[in-house]
Amino acid sequence: MTAIEEMAVKAKAAAGILRASTPAQRADALKRMSEKLKGCREAVLAANAEDMKDAANLSAAFQKRLRVDDKVFAYMTKRLQEAAALPDPVGRILEERTMPSGLQVKKVAVPIGVIAMIYEARPNVTTDAAAVALKSGNAVILKGGSESLRTNLVLAEAMRSAVKEAGLPEDAVQLIPTADRSAVNELLKQDKYVDLIIPRGGKSLIRAIAEGTRIPVLKHYDGICHQYVAPDADEEMAVKLVVNSKCQNFAVCNALETLLVDAALPDSTLRKIADALRENGVEIRGCSRFCSRVPGCVPATDEDWDTEYLDKILSIRVVDGIAEAMKHIEEHGSGHTDGIITKSDELAARFTANVDSASVLVNASTRLSGGGDYGMGAVVGISTDRLHARGPVGPAELCTYKWVAVGNGQLRN
Amino acid sequence: MTAIEEMAVKAKAAAGILRASTPAQRADALKRMSEKLKGCREAVLAANAEDMKDAANLSAAFQKRLRVDDKVFAYMTKRLQEAAALPDPVGRILEERTMPSGLQVKKVAVPIGVIAMIYEARPNVTTDAAAVALKSGNAVILKGGSESLRTNLVLAEAMRSAVKEAGLPEDAVQLIPTADRSAVNELLKQDKYVDLIIPRGGKSLIRAIAEGTRIPVLKHYDGICHQYVAPDADEEMAVKLVVNSKCQNFAVCNALETLLVDAALPDSTLRKIADALRENGVEIRGCSRFCSRVPGCVPATDEDWDTEYLDKILSIRVVDGIAEAMKHIEEHGSGHTDGIITKSDELAARFTANVDSASVLVNASTRLSGGGDYGMGAVVGISTDRLHARGPVGPAELCTYKWVAVGNGQLRN
Repeated sequence: MTAIEEMAVKAKAAAGILRASTPAQRADALKRMSEKLKGCREAVLAANAEDMKDAANLSAAFQKRLRVDDKVFAYMTKRLQEAAALPDPVGRILEERTMPSGLQVKKVAVPIGVIAMIYEARPNVTTDAAAVALKSGNAVILKGGSESLRTNLVLAEAMRSAVKEAGLPEDAVQLIPTADRSAVNELLKQDKYVDLIIPRGGKSLIRAIAEGTRIPVLKHYDGICHQYVAPDADEEMAVKLVVNSKCQNFAVCNALETLLVDAALPDSTLRKIADALRENGVEIRGCSRFCSRVPGCVPATDEDWDTEYLDKILSIRVVDGIAEAMKHIEEHGSGHTDGIITKSDELAARFTANVDSASVLVNASTRLSGGGDYGMGAVVGISTDRLHARGPVGPAELCTYKWVAVGNGQLRN
Repeated sequence: MTAIEEMAVKAKAAAGILRASTPAQRADALKRMSEKLKGCREAVLAANAEDMKDAANLSAAFQKRLRVDDKVFAYMTKRLQEAAALPDPVGRILEERTMPSGLQVKKVAVPIGVIAMIYEARPNVTTDAAAVALKSGNAVILKGGSESLRTNLVLAEAMRSAVKEAGLPEDAVQLIPTADRSAVNELLKQDKYVDLIIPRGGKSLIRAIAEGTRIPVLKHYDGICHQYVAPDADEEMAVKLVVNSKCQNFAVCNALETLLVDAALPDSTLRKIADALRENGVEIRGCSRFCSRVPGCVPATDEDWDTEYLDKILSIRVVDGIAEAMKHIEEHGSGHTDGIITKSDELAARFTANVDSASVLVNASTRLSGGGDYGMGAVVGISTDRLHARGPVGPAELCTYKWVAVGNGQLRN
């Protein structure tokens, strides 16, 4: 038995115990995880300093994700604490009815079982994923980016000992303790024990994982997010929403990548939008119509409409009405998050009915499509899959269900 | 573009129209499908007679599934009619809240999109699958067992013309019009257009499909179903439930395959159960303890505990208490349907909390785990997967959801 298979076996055993654990036990474990982590602050920061040293030549964005400073550390412990207080998703009655036969039928939320999480070198994901998994009664196997290994080892050890002190199996949280890539390949083979894999990171990594395993995969692909500014949009609101959607954090999956402006909007509005973006350092790549109406834009190529920049670049296209906007989104969007800015209830209703994305927004920043702003608390990511969970993945999404039917001798005729 | 890819493209286009269709339109289409089918009765029966002629050398069980007689035909048209009257699953508000920011967040049920259904030579599945898919606003591509091709062609043509008359795209229902196996391989490649594959049939076929495609697969594996008879079980009820679970239809996935009897039950009860089974022609394969307490049983081998007989054979094992019963189910069960027969609420609660199967029953026949007896109406099968849908798969299970968030200019800070 390989080391990874052993971990998978232990996770499965832990999941069997977690399945029958109480909400109070799980909340207690989460609180202890937060407290225990606070007690390990120096060790976490020291391990992270070592990781940062080795990452000195990597990009600023990479280092930013890897760094655990006081602010990130406070966020991590707070998230664990908050998860303890969230409503418990396990045991929820999703449906309930008594059949004419007298059979009492219930659909009850239960944990999925064993979840493997493969992610970037972002230590806060280590604690977030453990929090969401434990909250929902699942055992989790964590494989973070190898550059964060030292930090993750300290985090995982602290969380494991807290889980144990809470009287739950420490193997509810396991970290693959190696930077060796072959460990992932070995993990993908554990379909006897692992019920779900959640990969995060580059598209090619996610695709390779999905193709290399029989285990169900909840994919987190890219977000080519749109806003469509309708002819009747409030100008001031449109400017603010576009700037916030693009600039509040341009490096994330729900940042705006393509703006669709209605041809009926006045030049003055288009220019105000462009000016505000430029003031925030955004390069505009416009279609020919936009370039002719707003001076100083870079002409967009066909490729731009299919690009997730994750950078201070925005493509802008002029469209003739809502139908053309929706067609563009259908053809070029990634089904992640798309919005409309309009005063018209009728246009908003048409947009939300026809745009087939995980999140469809009306008069709101694309940056709001996420667990926190939807009231879901901690999440492990935003799924771009259509099955099982779509959009933010929190504790409720890491549950499946079973049917419990209670009778008094009912037969089938 | 291959013929199959063309079908997939057409299905995707039809799904785009269905997405925005109304419940009334879909119900009207289903009613028309039922009526149109009734008008084609002679043609269906004649085509089926041809199919049956070619299947003359196949097993009785196979021919039984393939045959469309008056009873089956009436069932098919009735199911379409009933599907029209079921509550519409599309547009259901699954969650709804207003955030402190004023953002109104809704989780709304929407169709999955394009569903491919690969199944045995059972013509009633052709109409059931079309009914469930259309009810939930999905386009469906049907690939039934090649022995049923003539029957299916008539059924599909009738349903397509009814859908068209209802003003919806006829490509909402498409049948792969060939017995050629390579069509399935081609279908598995259509991940650009097909959102979900539902295979039914042999385990090896399902496994081959799941391994051969990037499209999500909702698997329907075997059912190694158990009943555990607790020491306090009502004897008469136990006898009736065991016989019904095993004999009402032994050839289906929710039929009983292994009976676990508590060691504390008196010999007289074990014998009554055995006698009743034998009266119904069931061969008993007992563990050594059962064989020593009830004469005339075939000794079970290790293999018996992992076998889905789908036949008039039942394995019986004596267990020392509920813990051993649950351990046996965990080790040998398939997570399909498992039941307990007991008068004790405490034993029942322990069993339903710990047995991790899609359906967990108390004092009810395993044959009741299904769409009809759970109040779900028509279903396309019983999923043994843990993700997305578990247990019976009806119209609600062929929906995904999207998040619709309506604001008045909310930004992220």
